[in-house]
Amino acid sequence: MPATTRRRASHSLETVISEAVALLDEAGEPALTFRALAARLGTGVGSIYWYVSGKDELLDKATDHVLAQSLADIEPFLAGEDPIANLRAVGVTVFDAIVRRPWLGAYFMRTTGTQANGLLLYERIGEQVLRLGLTPRQSFHAVSAIVGYVVGIAADLGQQPPQAVLDGDVDREDVIAEAAAAWRDLDPATFPFIHHVVDEFAVHDDADQFRAGLDLLLAGLRLQADGGR
Amino acid sequence: MPATTRRRASHSLETVISEAVALLDEAGEPALTFRALAARLGTGVGSIYWYVSGKDELLDKATDHVLAQSLADIEPFLAGEDPIANLRAVGVTVFDAIVRRPWLGAYFMRTTGTQANGLLLYERIGEQVLRLGLTPRQSFHAVSAIVGYVVGIAADLGQQPPQAVLDGDVDREDVIAEAAAAWRDLDPATFPFIHHVVDEFAVHDDADQFRAGLDLLLAGLRLQADGGR
Repeated sequence: MPATTRRRASHSLETVISEAVALLDEAGEPALTFRALAARLGTGVGSIYWYVSGKDELLDKATDHVLAQSLADIEPFLAGEDPIANLRAVGVTVFDAIVRRPWLGAYFMRTTGTQANGLLLYERIGEQVLRLGLTPRQSFHAVSAIVGYVVGIAADLGQQPPQAVLDGDVDREDVIAEAAAAWRDLDPATFPFIHHVVDEFAVHDDADQFRAGLDLLLAGLRLQADGGR
Repeated sequence: MPATTRRRASHSLETVISEAVALLDEAGEPALTFRALAARLGTGVGSIYWYVSGKDELLDKATDHVLAQSLADIEPFLAGEDPIANLRAVGVTVFDAIVRRPWLGAYFMRTTGTQANGLLLYERIGEQVLRLGLTPRQSFHAVSAIVGYVVGIAADLGQQPPQAVLDGDVDREDVIAEAAAAWRDLDPATFPFIHHVVDEFAVHDDADQFRAGLDLLLAGLRLQADGGR
């Protein structure tokens, strides 16, 4: 890169990445343009290319930056006596981190090759599974299932709200109340299950729902660890 | 809508939707423009607006069109004696349908309000859970967990391959072999779990991985149904 550009690179990589994260938190992935980021940094677009090759690398580094916080957040749960209980706490912590940042789900631990903290997080989760004494194949599948469930559900929640809700024109409660009313209008003979659960659906909380599913998955894992194969 | 437009509407909704699905299957969501669809139908953009209000409704209808096939595909599994085994067969069938169509994951059962077949699919899955005799709350959470896991993992697989793989420049085996080699180079003292599973990772199959996790989830559900709460 020419010396002129080098002289223009007046920010640290750390600053560039944390400002990118701030932009993503405020307005989501579409808002993250080099132009917008440069304006925020009060610099030229060229000085951003000094640090990253393009938007993909920027998103990758922004994601890994956020993962550093997740790693710190899960640390206290890793020493617990029961690995399954630890996995639950870690899963809930990671889920909350992704839900707080709707942009994160699409990149979270997608490319552990370039996300150093993503690799560490995968290892930390795996080390809890390691304590269960499963075969390498069972261990690999267990971590894949936990990470896949946590990231899959959280990413889905991140993109699921209708535009009207995201725009703040309608709130979540109205949308759910409307859907619940439509469910109640369905023929009970044709939709027995919908009628069985509609009162729960009407008052459901996405985080409760997530935790209940995680508990089923972990109950299956504990059963496998206890030899119920 | 003006009569002139009405006269130009020379296709059935069915044709418009099935051509939209064909376009999505061939080139994915970005390729689905009203212009490209009109060209395919040999008609004007105006005649598409005759059937749908915009791209969102088109994607919604295209998704529901595909769900009709999934409903037919799961039908044979619903009569089985063991609801858990039926849920497994349904889960694998739905997973395969989404993996075959990478565009589908982002829309699959997102808005059961407008996706009539999505609502039916949710009901069919729920009716198997209904046979387990759980509380409405447990039943609602069980179906949410199964649908969330299946769609979440399948949608993730749909977007996960690196661009180079999608472009066909590199094949999946090379990417995994490269990542496995990088994992083997990690310090075993710092990454004991990675080293425990790297040989499995090197030969892993995404569908096996998905089924193993589904089995853990369903084992937890069976345990709950058997009273192990």
